[in-house]
Amino acid sequence: MSQPSMPTPRTRVVREADRGVYDRETAYRILDEGFLCHVGFVADGQPFVIPTSYGRKDASLYIHGSAASRMLRQMKEGIPVCITVTLLDGLVLARSVFNHSMNYRSVVILGKATLVEQPAEKLEALRLLSEHILPGRWDDARQPNERELKATSVLRLPIEEFSAKVRTGPPVDDEEDYSFPTWAGVVPLEMTAGTPVNDPRLDPARKVPHYVSNYSRQH
Amino acid sequence: MSQPSMPTPRTRVVREADRGVYDRETAYRILDEGFLCHVGFVADGQPFVIPTSYGRKDASLYIHGSAASRMLRQMKEGIPVCITVTLLDGLVLARSVFNHSMNYRSVVILGKATLVEQPAEKLEALRLLSEHILPGRWDDARQPNERELKATSVLRLPIEEFSAKVRTGPPVDDEEDYSFPTWAGVVPLEMTAGTPVNDPRLDPARKVPHYVSNYSRQH
Repeated sequence: MSQPSMPTPRTRVVREADRGVYDRETAYRILDEGFLCHVGFVADGQPFVIPTSYGRKDASLYIHGSAASRMLRQMKEGIPVCITVTLLDGLVLARSVFNHSMNYRSVVILGKATLVEQPAEKLEALRLLSEHILPGRWDDARQPNERELKATSVLRLPIEEFSAKVRTGPPVDDEEDYSFPTWAGVVPLEMTAGTPVNDPRLDPARKVPHYVSNYSRQH
Repeated sequence: MSQPSMPTPRTRVVREADRGVYDRETAYRILDEGFLCHVGFVADGQPFVIPTSYGRKDASLYIHGSAASRMLRQMKEGIPVCITVTLLDGLVLARSVFNHSMNYRSVVILGKATLVEQPAEKLEALRLLSEHILPGRWDDARQPNERELKATSVLRLPIEEFSAKVRTGPPVDDEEDYSFPTWAGVVPLEMTAGTPVNDPRLDPARKVPHYVSNYSRQH
C-alpha cells in the first residue's frame, strides 16, 4: 500500500483546488502511462524546460542523457528541479468561452536529482527506463557497453514532494448558459501508435515483434 | 519573410547540435501544430513547470489563466520564464539500446512575459488563443463578459530568444550493429482526436459542428 502524501505549500494545488490529488497511486498511474516529461532547472537565474523521457520504479523517477548535456551537467550539482508529466485527454467545449477547458492528468514533482554512479544500479536504471517506454525491448537489443555507459548519465529524482492534477468529464457551464445555442461536449484526444516503419536497412526476413505491434500506452 | 534568428549562448543547442534549428518558420510550424506548452518559472529558488495552453500571433506567444493563479501572479512580476512546446512523433528503435531515440519536434523560448492590460488587446489575445486551439469555436460560443475578463489574466511572451530541435527518420546504429539480429525501425506516434462526446445536458437536436468533427492538429 502506498502511504498518503501531504501537499507542501509548494505543491498544494491553488487553482481549481478540487482537481488536486495527492495520493501516490494516482500519481504513479499517470507517471506510468506517460514517458515524456518536462524537466525544469535554473541556470544563472534563467529557468530552462527541457523535454526528455523517464522511467519509474517505486518512489524513484529516472532520467538519462548524455553525460555532456547542459541539463544533466547542471542537475548533477544537486540543484532543485521540477519534473512535470502531462497527459492530454481532451478538449472541453463549454457554451461560454470562459468555461472552455481541457481534460488532462498531470504530475509535478519537486526535489533534487542525484547522479546514479554505481555501475550495476546505473545499468538497472537504464533497463527500467527502457522497459518503462517500451516493455520487452531491452532483452531484444544490443546491450550497452562500457564506453556507452560512460557516455550516459542517469539521474534519480525521489518522488517525495509531488502533486497531481486531474480534470475529467463534460464541460461545466454557468446555469444561465445551458440554453445558449451551441454544441457542447468533449473532443477526446489520445496519443496513438501508427503502423511500425521498418528501418530501410532492416533484413526483410525480420518480423515486427509483438511488443511493437501491440504497443499502447494504456496499461 | 521571417528574419533568421541567431542562437544566443542560452539557446544554442549543445547536444546533437545537428538537430538544432533556429529559423522562425520551423519554430512557428511547431508552435502552430501544438497547443500545450510547459511554462517554467522560478519562485524562491525553486523551478516550477506548469502545463498550459497557448496561442501564437506573429512573434507573440500568449498564455492565459486565472488572475489568481500562482504561475500568473509570479510571471506578472516580469520574471524570466521558459516556455517549451514538444511534439512527439515516434519511438526510434535501434539495434543497440544506446542508439534508441525518439522522433520529436520541440521549441524552447526564453524571455520575460508581460501582462496584456488593454481590454481590446486582451480580448483579441483570448480570441487568438481560442482560435489557435480550435479554429471556428470562438464565434460559436458565448463571448466573455466584464466579470470573466477581469478574472482572466493574459500574458504575452515575445518569440525572440528561441531554438527548435527536430529529430526525424530511422534509427542510426553503429555500423557494426547493423547485423545484430533484432527488429529496428520507428513506431510513429500521433495525437489523435476521437469521436466527439456530447455534453449530457446538450439539446439532442444540436449537431456536432464541422470544426469539431474535422478536428486535426495537422495544418
